[in-house]
Amino acid sequence: MTSFTPPIHGNNRHLPFGDQQDSAFYGRDILSVSQFDREQLTYIFDVAHEMYEMVARVGSFDLLKGKILANLFYEPSTRTSSSFTSAMERLGGSVIPINNVSYSSVTKGESLPDTVRTLEAYADVIVLRHPEVGSSALAAKYARKPVINAGDGVGEHPTQALLDLFTIREELKRVDGLTVTMMGDLRYGRTVHSLARLLTLYDVRLNYVSPDVLAMPREIMTEIEESGIPQASFTSLEPVLAETDVLYVTRVQKERLEDPNIHESLKGAYGVTTETLLRAKDKMIVMHPLPRVWEIEMAVDDDPRAAYFRQMEYGLYIRMALLAMVLGKA
Amino acid sequence: MTSFTPPIHGNNRHLPFGDQQDSAFYGRDILSVSQFDREQLTYIFDVAHEMYEMVARVGSFDLLKGKILANLFYEPSTRTSSSFTSAMERLGGSVIPINNVSYSSVTKGESLPDTVRTLEAYADVIVLRHPEVGSSALAAKYARKPVINAGDGVGEHPTQALLDLFTIREELKRVDGLTVTMMGDLRYGRTVHSLARLLTLYDVRLNYVSPDVLAMPREIMTEIEESGIPQASFTSLEPVLAETDVLYVTRVQKERLEDPNIHESLKGAYGVTTETLLRAKDKMIVMHPLPRVWEIEMAVDDDPRAAYFRQMEYGLYIRMALLAMVLGKA
Amino acid sequence: MTSFTPPIHGNNRHLPFGDQQDSAFYGRDILSVSQFDREQLTYIFDVAHEMYEMVARVGSFDLLKGKILANLFYEPSTRTSSSFTSAMERLGGSVIPINNVSYSSVTKGESLPDTVRTLEAYADVIVLRHPEVGSSALAAKYARKPVINAGDGVGEHPTQALLDLFTIREELKRVDGLTVTMMGDLRYGRTVHSLARLLTLYDVRLNYVSPDVLAMPREIMTEIEESGIPQASFTSLEPVLAETDVLYVTRVQKERLEDPNIHESLKGAYGVTTETLLRAKDKMIVMHPLPRVWEIEMAVDDDPRAAYFRQMEYGLYIRMALLAMVLGKA
Repeated sequence: MTSFTPPIHGNNRHLPFGDQQDSAFYGRDILSVSQFDREQLTYIFDVAHEMYEMVARVGSFDLLKGKILANLFYEPSTRTSSSFTSAMERLGGSVIPINNVSYSSVTKGESLPDTVRTLEAYADVIVLRHPEVGSSALAAKYARKPVINAGDGVGEHPTQALLDLFTIREELKRVDGLTVTMMGDLRYGRTVHSLARLLTLYDVRLNYVSPDVLAMPREIMTEIEESGIPQASFTSLEPVLAETDVLYVTRVQKERLEDPNIHESLKGAYGVTTETLLRAKDKMIVMHPLPRVWEIEMAVDDDPRAAYFRQMEYGLYIRMALLAMVLGKA
Repeated sequence: MTSFTPPIHGNNRHLPFGDQQDSAFYGRDILSVSQFDREQLTYIFDVAHEMYEMVARVGSFDLLKGKILANLFYEPSTRTSSSFTSAMERLGGSVIPINNVSYSSVTKGESLPDTVRTLEAYADVIVLRHPEVGSSALAAKYARKPVINAGDGVGEHPTQALLDLFTIREELKRVDGLTVTMMGDLRYGRTVHSLARLLTLYDVRLNYVSPDVLAMPREIMTEIEESGIPQASFTSLEPVLAETDVLYVTRVQKERLEDPNIHESLKGAYGVTTETLLRAKDKMIVMHPLPRVWEIEMAVDDDPRAAYFRQMEYGLYIRMALLAMVLGKA
Repeated sequence: MTSFTPPIHGNNRHLPFGDQQDSAFYGRDILSVSQFDREQLTYIFDVAHEMYEMVARVGSFDLLKGKILANLFYEPSTRTSSSFTSAMERLGGSVIPINNVSYSSVTKGESLPDTVRTLEAYADVIVLRHPEVGSSALAAKYARKPVINAGDGVGEHPTQALLDLFTIREELKRVDGLTVTMMGDLRYGRTVHSLARLLTLYDVRLNYVSPDVLAMPREIMTEIEESGIPQASFTSLEPVLAETDVLYVTRVQKERLEDPNIHESLKGAYGVTTETLLRAKDKMIVMHPLPRVWEIEMAVDDDPRAAYFRQMEYGLYIRMALLAMVLGKA
């Protein structure tokens, strides 16, 4: 038997949970929001805030110089892909962009584990976007390098949930005590499911505003209920607008509606306008995972409470923090 | 209302025209050739010439280290995309390549302003190629970061026009006093329109050589006439070949011809061969925006007057200069 | 005639064979395995081994800082493209990724020589993957910058052959005296053809194991025979398994079989299982160019003799070595 030890893994081995170099996150995968407790979230957000301050001061810096990210996207997502690329580049690292993977090895029948084991020969960390639920966990099982889930179908998109929560913390300086109202497609909207779950770690109040056909799923509501967090459902924003600190709006996709004819009727009822903001708190924020279509009219963009473009920028800091952490540099 | 100020914009804000840090170009958009006067062109070309000398001496250097370019191409253009990527990399900066944008957010219905406002959270400057006229101006209206137009349909492609003019200046050491002959498809050829407009700032003589169906449009000729620049149209190169200092050849696209049968007949009349060069000046240059098909035969490539591949390289220096200038580093 | 000399070529000109700066490889193209003698292979492998040690020690380093690689892929190959990208980035260089070239200039009818002459205005070295045999030689003929063939159809893929041989040398500490058994599709498998040719420079014994319809082509066997290397063909692995030091398995592509019905029957006869390894030497290795489908069952991956994922990593070091060498930095 040969005694070969793959060399570049030697100084960056994939450690089991609990074993650590610089931090509890060194060498770990980021697969699901459920892997974090409140203390860990605070740590991530503190690091992300440091990233924000460093970028404000110097733009970029060489924390991850010489490190390589394999940005493996089995389905296109300009926003998420660009955000991870920027995060790595602002930290002085390099990126292997792999956007057309569906036309490549995969068409020759290669399995995801084999693709990942190949890429880890070239990169120090793998970001994976894949249409199938559980794909990131599968990749992480086989990879010795850290895997960051950038969305696995209707499953998880943990960095999105983290950036959503970080946005609230940065914009309103706290999470405890807030009233968070989620509006739009709460049935298929992956982001609101993950955010609701993460918020059970805090002392918040949740409102759901949607038509009945797009209501928050029963199993999510059961989870929230078990956590003791108060929640309530509405078919109109009006009753809860005045008390809302965070209005999280999601996109209503016409193709998700069984009866597409109701799509038009939703625009009036579940869209945010400058008129809406007249009756909202002065210090509330409007969030949206983007892309938006009609859910928030462009005139709202000029209102300081429109936080959705800043939300994109917070995503950069969250991803910078996670990359630095799993590579042992935070 | 929150008082959040997006941090990475703080040290790179998008300044209005006239307001400046290092130069009049800091924070500005590059949208159209019409935005430059002759003095500004001279400045751009001087910076581009410095870039040429620096590249000759050291290959690359860290003028834009830590800066990130979002290279946003809604339609493919290997040449232009690669040129901007190289320009950023030779200056030590990084690139977010976004080539498959048409398959991505856009298909979810996102507007260009939203895409641009998202990308500016990740990048310091945006290069945009888009099939619709006016798209770059629209993007620039919403972006706080500088936008460089890399072609908006049949509209403008200002960096192409600048590199064309820079090629003439570098190769022939002057622009004033030259006779520039444009040949081929002058009707649909965006590059000759922009170059002709730019040349009105100089003391030149313009000749147009094309079949009638591909003649220079009336509105361009009116513009040139109003500038006082002498111009003349021909259906054959012969009468003006001997006096020509710059022979700018464009591609004739078969699909643009109403009667595709005439395409073959054009090859003899409007193609450049080694025979053509026998009757041309010793110190003239042949230019072409590339890709070429039959307009210039490959045997011409070996003639020192064949400037079209060097033209590609001049494009690199122009783009390096513009990137450095709008980022306040020139 | 103008006396312009393209500046960035001045300090990196494309030297003819034999003319050298730092080494015999400076400025040269890498087109075919047949261009190397045994001494040159030893030199390449020594440099690749240095790369392996440097990566193990520091991950990345700035040997090629400021240099730019144009990674020009006319057909997708995630593995090869990622490997070259990583190689350039681990050496501190930059990459222009050109993956969608088939949708771009080429569709406008541009020839490969023109594309290459354009790209060399932006890059210091060109890696080319192209579906047509001889395309790399054609590109190299016109390019003044070094061209590295990353696969030209059923022609050559020299860096694959070099990494295969390097894998054997690194894993078994020698090549002379080994028995190399090639199994699977030996008829269409480009990698086994190139490896067999390269191995004629060493003192080895070759076994071919395949069904008759996928046997090693007559012309390759003639070449091997003329070199004096002993070779033998089998339709089953059993007779040669015990003596084998290197078992090189290739993918059997169903679409290559005239009678696809026999595909299923091949799985039992030409697949490697943990059972197979029970009867193999303790110090042998199993190789595969990947992607694999059924030829090696996943349970084999856990055996230390499974070298195919390490093989991917050795490819990184070979490509780092070649890039450094042709750019005069090895």
